Amino acid sequence: MSISQTVIRRLPMYLHYLKQLPEETHNVSATTIAAGLGLGDVQVRKDLALISGAGKPKVGYEKAELMDAIEDCLGYKDKKLAVIAGAGKLGTAFLEFEGFNDYGLNIAAAFDNNLSKTGCSNTGKYIYPISDLKEFCRTEKVIIGIITVPSSDAQNVCDMMVESGIKAIWNFAPVKLNAPESVIIQNENLASSLALLSNRLAR
Amino acid sequence: MSISQTVIRRLPMYLHYLKQLPEETHNVSATTIAAGLGLGDVQVRKDLALISGAGKPKVGYEKAELMDAIEDCLGYKDKKLAVIAGAGKLGTAFLEFEGFNDYGLNIAAAFDNNLSKTGCSNTGKYIYPISDLKEFCRTEKVIIGIITVPSSDAQNVCDMMVESGIKAIWNFAPVKLNAPESVIIQNENLASSLALLSNRLAR
Repeated sequence: MSISQTVIRRLPMYLHYLKQLPEETHNVSATTIAAGLGLGDVQVRKDLALISGAGKPKVGYEKAELMDAIEDCLGYKDKKLAVIAGAGKLGTAFLEFEGFNDYGLNIAAAFDNNLSKTGCSNTGKYIYPISDLKEFCRTEKVIIGIITVPSSDAQNVCDMMVESGIKAIWNFAPVKLNAPESVIIQNENLASSLALLSNRLAR
Repeated sequence: MSISQTVIRRLPMYLHYLKQLPEETHNVSATTIAAGLGLGDVQVRKDLALISGAGKPKVGYEKAELMDAIEDCLGYKDKKLAVIAGAGKLGTAFLEFEGFNDYGLNIAAAFDNNLSKTGCSNTGKYIYPISDLKEFCRTEKVIIGIITVPSSDAQNVCDMMVESGIKAIWNFAPVKLNAPESVIIQNENLASSLALLSNRLAR
């Protein structure tokens, strides 16, 4: 069954809400979740029905089961190995952010062309020279590449990632990348978002 | 004239492309821009027509004029003062990222409830105690608030920002914020994006 992108995008929010509930809470209704997140009752009910069937009348969903179903749907259970290209501020923030683990993302290392940046980061993860990227990805069977290099270097890094067998690229550089169709590219353009915010303010 | 969000989101890409052209390039056609960015010719032509009218036949657009029109449309020329709440990795990355200036965003300072984080950052910008947020925003007439605190603190910070007269909030915490309708809220949910990428990989 295919679930729409809009629903997929809401699932981490439900999961996050469920995780912060007290441990002794065993059941939770769609209505409670909706209220807790400030979302519409009907929407939450529909979303959850897609993932885990209908809740039991007057009882709702079993919390653990629902979390399990969401994590399953999002593929958070299969740990996916990722690397970061570009150990600037954003890249380092990602390298040191341990929360990605909850999303099934295991960031193995970062790579940079500035050799003065290589070495061990504060959290014990390594930054290697970018020339080591391909061999590392092939040996470790890395499947996700995160691009946080400047725009001018992004296509180059993308090519290297594709050649290393990476299957999905999370791109934070504000350029369109060319890659074979088999490679999933997800663009995260903070400049675009900022443009939108700025334009909405100007109206 | 109101321009669609989809078009607005593409404008920073055009601007970025125009900026990296050699200084001696005075004219540029929609076709060249489309090719340079790997976008469709028709789309680029339509987008630019909305912003700056049609290009001249065989000459295209005057580069400087086009850049001007885009920056105008995006409101990049009126510098907007912003603050960051949450001086963790992401918040600090934003505080020290000078590129936001190009987007008309002038980040004045960051605020954190962890007093050990307060002081001067590497780039000479200050991190203040969160208790100073309201007074700072009121005095400096800050209009944009960037939220990079943990989810559990986000609504609290949002309330403080609204009370300080902030007009737009760029929210990186994965929760829905409640604010008066007059306040623009733009959510940037990295967990949602990651969920989408993860789900696409699992298919």
